[in-house]
Amino acid sequence: MAVVAMWKCDRDNTMFDDKKQADAYDKMLELAEQFTALLESQVAGIDEKAAEAFGLLLANNKEQVAMACKGKPEVLAEILNPASVTDIAEAKAAG
Amino acid sequence: MAVVAMWKCDRDNTMFDDKKQADAYDKMLELAEQFTALLESQVAGIDEKAAEAFGLLLANNKEQVAMACKGKPEVLAEILNPASVTDIAEAKAAG
Repeated sequence: MAVVAMWKCDRDNTMFDDKKQADAYDKMLELAEQFTALLESQVAGIDEKAAEAFGLLLANNKEQVAMACKGKPEVLAEILNPASVTDIAEAKAAG
Repeated sequence: MAVVAMWKCDRDNTMFDDKKQADAYDKMLELAEQFTALLESQVAGIDEKAAEAFGLLLANNKEQVAMACKGKPEVLAEILNPASVTDIAEAKAAG
């Protein structure tokens, strides 16, 4: 039998057979942790699980967050209402 | 005496004598409101003032937030520690 390389994200032990995916996942978790740390530092007593979930929400929607910061704040509202999702390529084309 | 054009941001009645500044301020407040709305929708019972302050913090640091989403999550930590601020032009140059 062959031996197959696997990649483990040591933040939560998720396994990947593709390094690029593992790197992207690790970067997403790092971004989530940074958002969570920032939130926890600003909102005293915030529920840890809720703060983590919010960090993940922003990290998992980082394209919309970046677009909102670049002049399209309304895109943030679409994070919770995918039905009204602006196609990212279309939004970028609209510049 | 002359009559001078002024621009009022109707979100909080802040006055400007420069339209471009007024527009930028209005856009920043809109971004802050969107972040606050997203946070309030995700973290039940969060203190309204704290949620507003967090929205403003992200909106006032939108360059760092966008940069964090584009692959430099560590930049978020600099929002609270300006001493270690990466010069944005330098960070962009580093690509």
